[in-house]
Amino acid sequence: MKIELIRITENPEEIIEQAARTCYKSSFKNNPSFIRNLIKSGHESVLEHASATFQISGVSRALTHQLARHRLASYSQQSQRYVKEDQFEYVIPPSVEDLIEKKGGDFVAVYKNHMRQIQEMYNYWKKEGLKNEDARFLLPNACCTEIIMTANMREWRHIVNIRCDKNAQWEIRNMCLEILKILYLKTPNVFHDLYNKYTN
Amino acid sequence: MKIELIRITENPEEIIEQAARTCYKSSFKNNPSFIRNLIKSGHESVLEHASATFQISGVSRALTHQLARHRLASYSQQSQRYVKEDQFEYVIPPSVEDLIEKKGGDFVAVYKNHMRQIQEMYNYWKKEGLKNEDARFLLPNACCTEIIMTANMREWRHIVNIRCDKNAQWEIRNMCLEILKILYLKTPNVFHDLYNKYTN
Amino acid sequence: MKIELIRITENPEEIIEQAARTCYKSSFKNNPSFIRNLIKSGHESVLEHASATFQISGVSRALTHQLARHRLASYSQQSQRYVKEDQFEYVIPPSVEDLIEKKGGDFVAVYKNHMRQIQEMYNYWKKEGLKNEDARFLLPNACCTEIIMTANMREWRHIVNIRCDKNAQWEIRNMCLEILKILYLKTPNVFHDLYNKYTN
Amino acid sequence: MKIELIRITENPEEIIEQAARTCYKSSFKNNPSFIRNLIKSGHESVLEHASATFQISGVSRALTHQLARHRLASYSQQSQRYVKEDQFEYVIPPSVEDLIEKKGGDFVAVYKNHMRQIQEMYNYWKKEGLKNEDARFLLPNACCTEIIMTANMREWRHIVNIRCDKNAQWEIRNMCLEILKILYLKTPNVFHDLYNKYTN
Repeated sequence: MKIELIRITENPEEIIEQAARTCYKSSFKNNPSFIRNLIKSGHESVLEHASATFQISGVSRALTHQLARHRLASYSQQSQRYVKEDQFEYVIPPSVEDLIEKKGGDFVAVYKNHMRQIQEMYNYWKKEGLKNEDARFLLPNACCTEIIMTANMREWRHIVNIRCDKNAQWEIRNMCLEILKILYLKTPNVFHDLYNKYTN
Repeated sequence: MKIELIRITENPEEIIEQAARTCYKSSFKNNPSFIRNLIKSGHESVLEHASATFQISGVSRALTHQLARHRLASYSQQSQRYVKEDQFEYVIPPSVEDLIEKKGGDFVAVYKNHMRQIQEMYNYWKKEGLKNEDARFLLPNACCTEIIMTANMREWRHIVNIRCDKNAQWEIRNMCLEILKILYLKTPNVFHDLYNKYTN
Repeated sequence: MKIELIRITENPEEIIEQAARTCYKSSFKNNPSFIRNLIKSGHESVLEHASATFQISGVSRALTHQLARHRLASYSQQSQRYVKEDQFEYVIPPSVEDLIEKKGGDFVAVYKNHMRQIQEMYNYWKKEGLKNEDARFLLPNACCTEIIMTANMREWRHIVNIRCDKNAQWEIRNMCLEILKILYLKTPNVFHDLYNKYTN
Repeated sequence: MKIELIRITENPEEIIEQAARTCYKSSFKNNPSFIRNLIKSGHESVLEHASATFQISGVSRALTHQLARHRLASYSQQSQRYVKEDQFEYVIPPSVEDLIEKKGGDFVAVYKNHMRQIQEMYNYWKKEGLKNEDARFLLPNACCTEIIMTANMREWRHIVNIRCDKNAQWEIRNMCLEILKILYLKTPNVFHDLYNKYTN
């Protein structure tokens, strides 16, 4: 999994504070606790004026199928219709490695072998003349994909808060923890509470 | 593929007309060309007061991954985390059957055999102790899913118009043509132009 | 203020439950506490499959300016560009009547007189030849308007929860309390907690 | 009317192109016609990765009541509940000045006099003890307001295209023409067609 912040609104906390002060015609003060207090009191709409864009790769299509359910965001994803998957990469769940310890036996090799078999099925259908868009019916959820995703800070808070939860699925959770750490560095007052809640 | 309309706003054209007449304080007239004229002149916002809900099953997860990109709609989909896929059904692309005619040879049998192999891989990992959420990494895009989807008529028009296009992917196109036919029966003036454009 | 429910999804709780059970492939049970538990555990997305439409009149344009900030809803409002306001009605804040008791003096008559003066200003400009869209620059926030509004149950819960709060502005609060009562009658399990919180 | 661009995504055309090339796994080329072609062929979703924030002041509340109907954007507006309007500024429609030429007579002075009378009504109610939120019921649509608005480039294109139309209301049209000129300077390929269509 590779997560790179490729765009963020310039001085995000400044524009958020400026927006909040426009509502009440008060003057700009650059007070670190101001944004934290806005969030505590539920005035999150001003967070929408700052946004962040991530380039995410090395994640499974199982993950992006879930991720895209967050509808207040923008997505551009590598297409399996237009891109030929003749050497697809794939995600290996940590639970597969855990089996080695639990049971002995090279479960990672089995998993890789399964993926190779599926790759061969895909190649077979391509060779027989199917288009990418139909050969991809064979491809597994494990298949790696690349996605560029933009959301505003209010929505990033919402996504991070839901997906960093202990009950969240491990892959999307790992991704969102990484995103939380990056956003906290760039706009600490906006993610202060969530950073304390989810990273220790 | 099975598509069933399970909810639609009562008298959808009446509420749409009533909303339009509220804007201009004109009286309700029940004129069939009124809604068609609204649409022609681009006043589509009033279409949002009527909505329709479909239960869709027997479609691939490749389809729902695309479908859910329409963000102004609501989705509830069968989860591969919570539901065990020990006997998954799958979609066979028509191009697989076309190969039989083109080339001879039982390509459908090959496809089914591939799916059976993948099912066995899934079963293997379940037996070794993986949770559904990790065993599903093996499952293919062809895997059938069930989804309940609600959108308002403005968004249904948008979705249908994009996905019934000749360049659209065949499975989502077939689904949207079916949806268009059903919606046209229930609210002919709202889908009149699209019905004429896409069905003949 | 007149609030009328003009459309609601048929059997709203049934479709909500059906959507939730689709996710987990469990069978439909019609259990009253099922929806309450979904809401308690934060699984609100299934509420989006049911929606309600209200026709609201006799409210001020101050109210609708606030109301329309809820962006996950659909609005059709009487236009001051297309409709001539030669006999506009207006909202009188209760605080104006309260002044009578506090201070003596017929404050309601003063308020009505102010509104009559503004009506005369509007009429003056119309007579001089201004279009509605420019004469309306004189019209006050108190001016009555009519609006048709549709939202799904998840969004109605959100709106009602914010606007029934003690700190909300009185007019939108009264409207939302009325809406809450109507929705509670039609779909009690969806509004059970909010009804108990805000009405006694 | 004062319109100031206070934030825009860094190198907006670069991120848009990068997002488009992610979908097809093609390499970045920095080709000016690339974005224009995306727009011509209707692939506008990639435009969502770039956004722009404007600070807008000296516009009427009639304008912002219309503007906020664009729901895929973020707004922070000066509140008439929290801000006392003891010296409100106001917009004078050009048609008022046109009357001077058409009919003779100082119509601007009449307009200003009307506004002064309304200001006195507001002051009266404040003095009698009404809160801002109730005294504002007297305030006219002409009243100036300040708003900070953020939208992505896809939505700015949509807004500009609707509101620069000849049939649009003059004030919002003037504002959107100004916004179009500013955005065209910053991201010419995204606004190339609309700039040619609406400015000459």
